[in-house]
Amino acid sequence: MGKSERKKLAIVVQGGTIDKLYCAFILASTAVAIDMEAHLYFTFWGLNMLVKGAMEKAGLPATYKHLEEQMRKNLEKMKYPTPYEMLKRLRKSDLFKMYACSPTMAMFGIKREDLIPEVEEIVGAATFLEIATTADITLFI
Amino acid sequence: MGKSERKKLAIVVQGGTIDKLYCAFILASTAVAIDMEAHLYFTFWGLNMLVKGAMEKAGLPATYKHLEEQMRKNLEKMKYPTPYEMLKRLRKSDLFKMYACSPTMAMFGIKREDLIPEVEEIVGAATFLEIATTADITLFI
Amino acid sequence: MGKSERKKLAIVVQGGTIDKLYCAFILASTAVAIDMEAHLYFTFWGLNMLVKGAMEKAGLPATYKHLEEQMRKNLEKMKYPTPYEMLKRLRKSDLFKMYACSPTMAMFGIKREDLIPEVEEIVGAATFLEIATTADITLFI
Repeated sequence: MGKSERKKLAIVVQGGTIDKLYCAFILASTAVAIDMEAHLYFTFWGLNMLVKGAMEKAGLPATYKHLEEQMRKNLEKMKYPTPYEMLKRLRKSDLFKMYACSPTMAMFGIKREDLIPEVEEIVGAATFLEIATTADITLFI
Repeated sequence: MGKSERKKLAIVVQGGTIDKLYCAFILASTAVAIDMEAHLYFTFWGLNMLVKGAMEKAGLPATYKHLEEQMRKNLEKMKYPTPYEMLKRLRKSDLFKMYACSPTMAMFGIKREDLIPEVEEIVGAATFLEIATTADITLFI
Repeated sequence: MGKSERKKLAIVVQGGTIDKLYCAFILASTAVAIDMEAHLYFTFWGLNMLVKGAMEKAGLPATYKHLEEQMRKNLEKMKYPTPYEMLKRLRKSDLFKMYACSPTMAMFGIKREDLIPEVEEIVGAATFLEIATTADITLFI
């Protein structure tokens, strides 16, 4: 299918908790599997999860913290991939694009070399909005 | 109005707190009232709220927990319907569809018989993405 | 560019924490800067932040509370505008529109005179859904 005919999913990944990361990566993986493009723009806590070593430590939000141990056990028993493993798989697809939010990096004092090597592009919100205006599904996670 | 001309709202209900449930159900009820279709896909904490007896216990998130008592009193005074009452009303409309996320059920060990009878379909994310690509408004709540 | 050709961003601002407000206002400011319309519908905690004096006190959500001091220091050092300053700048643009959710006001006992003077219109969800169906990007923040 030609690029112009492809359906497109655009997600702002603002959350940095494991439930939000799973939602973003499961939706992106599913999109790619059904031949849709998936564009993820990491900002705020989502961007903070792209710092080396951070995603492995992602936990549940305060509201659901008490369920964290049980969820981790279930995921291990299911041999469910970790968020970072899902991201690495996604990066192998030409249909997947990820962007790090440059203003967030300035706000948190994060430098390019602090980020995991999977990050492709560091861009501002304008670039993402241009992409999202051509998307069929837009979500803020 | 014919189905193809109808505007369509598609929501991923990821949150399981009462404020998020109200937002999803108020938007869906309003959509249906103005002759739009409303499609709600319950995942993660949202899906957990479809377990029998769970929605009645939904509270506010940790950040706003201190406002819970006051909010409950206001809602009672206004005789505001509970989230579950709103959902039951929504289910009477042909314009409303709700879906339970099957991967979440596996992740949390939830079985079909654990869910409230209002649940129509248990589907994966691909089914929802296909629906959402034809929607006019897509939200992640 | 004529109004009908302009791209349009529609956001439900449900969150009332400083990170969510920044996301909404940065996206709206960026949209306006690239000649897009930006429509913000404030509901729940977002609406509560439109009460006079409230936005200045917005903090981080419980999950990220421990990062609040550091973030505030970084923002001051960068001379980053506060959320309220961003909102006041946005209001000077003809491309920006903001709406206060009337059912939320009833739910929290908030009156028109309690709100900051920047609020233009107090409307129900139906008005916002009509606007959002013509938007190119729809987000729930």
